[in-house]
Amino acid sequence: MPEIASTWMRGGTSKCWVFDRADLAAVGRPLDDVLPRLFGSPDPRQVDGVGGGTSTTSKAVILSPADDGDADVSYTFAQVGTDQAVVDWGSNCGNCSSVAGLYAVRRGWVEPRDGTTTVRVRNTNTGQLIVLEVPTPGGVPDERGTAWIPGVPFPGVPVRMWFVDPAGRTTGKLFPTGAHIDEVPDGGGTLPVTIVDAGAPLVVVAARSVGLAGDESPAEIDAWPGLADRLDALRRHAAVAIGLADSPGSAERAVPKLALVAEPHDDRSDLAVRMLSMGRAHPALAITGSVGLTLAARTPGTVIDRLAGTASGAELRLATPAGTVTTRTGEHEGRLAVAVTRTTRRLAEATLVLPEAESPQETLVTSGEPRHDDHSAPEEVAVR
Amino acid sequence: MPEIASTWMRGGTSKCWVFDRADLAAVGRPLDDVLPRLFGSPDPRQVDGVGGGTSTTSKAVILSPADDGDADVSYTFAQVGTDQAVVDWGSNCGNCSSVAGLYAVRRGWVEPRDGTTTVRVRNTNTGQLIVLEVPTPGGVPDERGTAWIPGVPFPGVPVRMWFVDPAGRTTGKLFPTGAHIDEVPDGGGTLPVTIVDAGAPLVVVAARSVGLAGDESPAEIDAWPGLADRLDALRRHAAVAIGLADSPGSAERAVPKLALVAEPHDDRSDLAVRMLSMGRAHPALAITGSVGLTLAARTPGTVIDRLAGTASGAELRLATPAGTVTTRTGEHEGRLAVAVTRTTRRLAEATLVLPEAESPQETLVTSGEPRHDDHSAPEEVAVR
Repeated sequence: MPEIASTWMRGGTSKCWVFDRADLAAVGRPLDDVLPRLFGSPDPRQVDGVGGGTSTTSKAVILSPADDGDADVSYTFAQVGTDQAVVDWGSNCGNCSSVAGLYAVRRGWVEPRDGTTTVRVRNTNTGQLIVLEVPTPGGVPDERGTAWIPGVPFPGVPVRMWFVDPAGRTTGKLFPTGAHIDEVPDGGGTLPVTIVDAGAPLVVVAARSVGLAGDESPAEIDAWPGLADRLDALRRHAAVAIGLADSPGSAERAVPKLALVAEPHDDRSDLAVRMLSMGRAHPALAITGSVGLTLAARTPGTVIDRLAGTASGAELRLATPAGTVTTRTGEHEGRLAVAVTRTTRRLAEATLVLPEAESPQETLVTSGEPRHDDHSAPEEVAVR
Repeated sequence: MPEIASTWMRGGTSKCWVFDRADLAAVGRPLDDVLPRLFGSPDPRQVDGVGGGTSTTSKAVILSPADDGDADVSYTFAQVGTDQAVVDWGSNCGNCSSVAGLYAVRRGWVEPRDGTTTVRVRNTNTGQLIVLEVPTPGGVPDERGTAWIPGVPFPGVPVRMWFVDPAGRTTGKLFPTGAHIDEVPDGGGTLPVTIVDAGAPLVVVAARSVGLAGDESPAEIDAWPGLADRLDALRRHAAVAIGLADSPGSAERAVPKLALVAEPHDDRSDLAVRMLSMGRAHPALAITGSVGLTLAARTPGTVIDRLAGTASGAELRLATPAGTVTTRTGEHEGRLAVAVTRTTRRLAEATLVLPEAESPQETLVTSGEPRHDDHSAPEEVAVR
């Protein structure tokens, strides 16, 4: 049976299996089959594979040296389904993006400098250029991470990520409908939302417009009567409005993302955010979504502007269920860029055992001759 | 940073990190610290470690060649807490027990035979001898598993496990109170239960005595109003009754286990079972608990006998939430033995990265010099 090399890394608040593209290509089977089988899908528990049984722990990162003038590393993100044996290739994961720099330096794909090494990563799902700053004191990657971020109870290596020129990567425009606020159906009436495309397409909704204060816990949001259906309808209608789906029913689960926002509840943040991911409340923050929030916050007339005023400083402090995450707006080589710092940690080096593709036939066989003093028939085990 | 070799294996419906005892000893730090840190505890998501964020996926198996005349392999089971950084050494896990045979043969600790290789395993948590039958056609372990068990949506290598002379391993007696039925407090009144010690101490309760039919799903049981507290009180009072705890408050979470039982709902099983594990409904069956159920079912006057009659055949078919699991009663070298078949699969070979022990001090440092054209202060990251 083939065994496939992989590095297990935490990236921000996600866990990601990181593959060298060449190692996966050598398997010679479609990745849409190989990744779900390695991860143990379909199975909400993923008990027969390396997935973690949740959307934030069922993720793959596929890397190779880039042949792209702007980038050092080519990065493809795969969201591996849990209860379904499907791979969603339609979006990037900002948390997982943070692992590419340390991996590339360790693999020798990028020459480390003394101090901080800049690794330029091209995400192939979205075309997004992401510039990572990896600590390399003395020209060596320092894995003794001592930095902390909200939502992770252990320290890691701090990596600042710049999303360069992020506007309109999916739809061609920062505000794909042309408006800063649209009225979008939610299955009953309509709600005012801002649809922004930066990092990932994102639907921004005022928490109070669905009866929330914006400081609820993820568990409270998931349990809120009728809320999940209403927000999913809103998300699907928004997908149609910006040309990502022909009908609400055919919209993807992963994009657009959705954020509930509210005025800050204290003076340590500029905006309260509750993000939804794959239909459930995110324990912290979908980082790609924070890029769109940052640019929407800087634009007059958006849902965020109406709640909290137009953001004008370089920093935007987002209050998430796990704590405050700060984004920074700046420039990279003359282009607008939004930065977020994540921590990352290498959890394990591994080779993953890939079973043969299965025959669907079902038969019954015995599980070997009985070797003890029972005189009944050999136990039967179902085999298909 | 030390990197520790480990094999990730599915054992039945559990996932287990399997260690060579010598590799863990070489780390030179207490296992009660090392295992939670490797697994990412305390953290219900275990996002910074190799644990799966649930009780059935946060388990370690520690193996070495045995110096015990009866056994080939010494096996210690560690239940690693998720939300707490603690290791429970007080019980065995039957599902995880099944991985020891394939591991030992692959490591060369047991000479394989043509056909089936018998591997004798001593569980050090309970003293229990477990005899495993591992398929080794042509004298080679066959990892192309094609057998299926309830609760696992993929095939694996079938391993029959015999629990040899299992009665009274923890308390010295099969029925530690001396009675086949006891009235035990449940926080309000009392309930009739059978307390049996075989495989693991187990409290057996008729589902109907707590208002259930015994065919409920794990989610329904977890959501049943007041049930979890009532059964936990029952379990804790039973722990005191058999000398495992001085008071209900000091009883462990892992033992005794608890099973709700009911008359079968169809003719494909002899007994319906809903097991609880660490306070939550088990998705399938705690295998150690099935040993006690089997011996209680064969004893007149127990809760099971009153529901379903005394079991007299070699086989007992247990209807679990995931499907039917059959136990078998026989003998091993003249001693009573109860067998269950599990499937196992090797998921990955790995080295796990163990961070240094952390200093609890909290300070603020910058995450490196800004390398882009923003002129604001470097971003601050909390470090403690």
